[in-house]
Amino acid sequence: MVQVAVMGHGVVGSGVVEVLMKHAQSIAKRAKEEICVKKILDLREFPDSPYADRFTKSFDDILSDPEIRVVAEVMGGLHPAYEYTKQLMEAGKSVVTSNKELVAQKGAELLAIAQKMNVNYLFEASVGGGIPIIRPISQCLAANDVQEIAGILNGTTNFILTKMIHEQMPFSEALALAQKLGYAERNPAADIEGQDACRKICILASLAFGRHVYPSQVHTEGITQITLADVDYAESWGGVIKLIGEVKMQESGKVQMIVCPMFVSRESQLATVDDVFNGIMVRGDATGDVVFYGKGAGKLPTASAVVADIIDCVKHFKARKYLFWEDGDPNYVEDYLDNSVSMYVRAAVGDHADAEEAIHRVFGKVDFLTRRDAGSEELAFVTLSMPERVIDEKLEELKKSGVTVAGKIRVGDF
Amino acid sequence: MVQVAVMGHGVVGSGVVEVLMKHAQSIAKRAKEEICVKKILDLREFPDSPYADRFTKSFDDILSDPEIRVVAEVMGGLHPAYEYTKQLMEAGKSVVTSNKELVAQKGAELLAIAQKMNVNYLFEASVGGGIPIIRPISQCLAANDVQEIAGILNGTTNFILTKMIHEQMPFSEALALAQKLGYAERNPAADIEGQDACRKICILASLAFGRHVYPSQVHTEGITQITLADVDYAESWGGVIKLIGEVKMQESGKVQMIVCPMFVSRESQLATVDDVFNGIMVRGDATGDVVFYGKGAGKLPTASAVVADIIDCVKHFKARKYLFWEDGDPNYVEDYLDNSVSMYVRAAVGDHADAEEAIHRVFGKVDFLTRRDAGSEELAFVTLSMPERVIDEKLEELKKSGVTVAGKIRVGDF
Repeated sequence: MVQVAVMGHGVVGSGVVEVLMKHAQSIAKRAKEEICVKKILDLREFPDSPYADRFTKSFDDILSDPEIRVVAEVMGGLHPAYEYTKQLMEAGKSVVTSNKELVAQKGAELLAIAQKMNVNYLFEASVGGGIPIIRPISQCLAANDVQEIAGILNGTTNFILTKMIHEQMPFSEALALAQKLGYAERNPAADIEGQDACRKICILASLAFGRHVYPSQVHTEGITQITLADVDYAESWGGVIKLIGEVKMQESGKVQMIVCPMFVSRESQLATVDDVFNGIMVRGDATGDVVFYGKGAGKLPTASAVVADIIDCVKHFKARKYLFWEDGDPNYVEDYLDNSVSMYVRAAVGDHADAEEAIHRVFGKVDFLTRRDAGSEELAFVTLSMPERVIDEKLEELKKSGVTVAGKIRVGDF
Repeated sequence: MVQVAVMGHGVVGSGVVEVLMKHAQSIAKRAKEEICVKKILDLREFPDSPYADRFTKSFDDILSDPEIRVVAEVMGGLHPAYEYTKQLMEAGKSVVTSNKELVAQKGAELLAIAQKMNVNYLFEASVGGGIPIIRPISQCLAANDVQEIAGILNGTTNFILTKMIHEQMPFSEALALAQKLGYAERNPAADIEGQDACRKICILASLAFGRHVYPSQVHTEGITQITLADVDYAESWGGVIKLIGEVKMQESGKVQMIVCPMFVSRESQLATVDDVFNGIMVRGDATGDVVFYGKGAGKLPTASAVVADIIDCVKHFKARKYLFWEDGDPNYVEDYLDNSVSMYVRAAVGDHADAEEAIHRVFGKVDFLTRRDAGSEELAFVTLSMPERVIDEKLEELKKSGVTVAGKIRVGDF
């Protein structure tokens, strides 16, 4: 029998205990050992829990218990999760987590400690909830050079965008609905500003290319500026707007990375990833495009991924799983303004004919888009692909001709 | 350094050698050992191959070489692949394969030998080509009860159906095009009659539910009877026709299984899996629906999956991977005629009003479908869900009223 501990008894933590109990028999069969929850760490009281006797408020009860060999850290946040994880691994225990913030900030350091101590640090649940993605990237694609990863990594924003696209619901109303349904938190900033998606693409990029990317290195834009007019223009262009986290390996050995809303072609498998679902496209040189789709969050999907990691730890007390990446480098991520991109622009203009002429003069060939209900002072177009810095210069130049940018969205090329 | 052998130098086999050579460095890093191809078994001559010196026509050269610890069997077919695989494992070598026919026919027996000999028998490449699916089902979903798997498992038929759906190309013409492009073999029976998809769903069902299902136990229909009229009716119903392999676990502990064309709702993630791509939906009690998408065949995708298995063998000489299922049982698969299903029926009729009245009398509520270009002697409808045996009886009864079945297709419920 293997004793484990669960740190945090919120949504995911209580799910982990539930899954471990409910599936105890089949888990024992797969892990080849019975798995028993010995301690649950939470500062709150849960007197009515059937496991009330296992709760503790003291981290030391877990750290100093030699019987506990695997700990699930599902507290979230950087502190004290970071210090706890370090101490646990230094004490010879394996740790599994759903804590994307911690992995994105401290992954390289924690993986190095795991390697040194010959324990495991696993985090399947940190990206894509119940979608298997960390293992497939690290193992099944072992014989591939991954070239690019692009994903819809945040369910909350995808729910909001889906409501805007399919029901013409304005952003603020869709956000309020998401909050009402429990998909968005009362302070939704981490979701709608793109930070959550940024953490996840940092983890995937670090894993796929072997070098840590820190969230602060990645240009990140959220979805708060998206209007129903943009949604309509995307439709007339032939696609939908999705919040995308993307990383591409360059010939130079550096990566291009960005998190932002993008026009996604209806031809793309990511275009039909709706509601709270996530979809992640991994482009390998041998496999071509592989897409993983499923619920990216939620109690049971995420908990089942945490439990799968616990099982893996139990099966691999001797053989360490191969999860590792080097520390980061401040020059590893290209300045996003140097990336070539095709840009959708919605502009406020005076005279239409004059504006079109000016846009052609400055940008050369563009595709003008139309929508119903567009006022006479609105004009939208999509540029050819060019470095974003050049696009910004040209848009600046257009101001002189009375063409003012009201909104712009990058066009995805996957 | 680990020595391996590759049996078969066809499309996949030559791809395996190519991937092992091209990615030698990164593979060595991941496997923590250099991997070297010592022998290639093929009866043909390859004098111009850069590896000409490694070819052999004698299986014994591989079997009796104690240095060779892992063998990739990519010959295909049951014999002699079955005998070779057995002998190799009994000699203490691990075997990896893309041979779905062999795994579907002899999986339980070969896995039992692997277990007894403490070697690995891995077959990620046997289903879904380069899509990681065997590992995710066996590992990541370890904390789930899988309830259902439904997949588009054959790229050739999916290409043909895509041409029929998007370009109104008749079946025979689409098949000829698939053959011209190299997607279909000169004898396309195994693809278009559904046997290939059947082997794959048998492997997935065996793995997910722990008991071998033999292809002969599964009712299998191909796509040769699908007409452009059916495609139009599917569209007016709100979906597309796809060749689906499906397995559902029942309360009774038996499974419902079938391979056949189905109406797939446009809402389903499988509806947008087009061309030669595969898509596999796995429904777990904790994860909900997870979908895997990618190229289901082809030299490099399949080869990269074989190589990933080789790497896994090398990493796990000591710790066996957990892949195992019990032998089959003749009563394990329910008679498909007892499964409840909603059925699309295209019928030849005399008088329309009389026919509609008779259909309502016999079936109760149905949804009539319409299409452009339907002759006055054609009528199409979708029944409510009921046991297929009952549907067949009712259709037989309708004959008396001059309603003759010209085509019927089951409606998918995923």
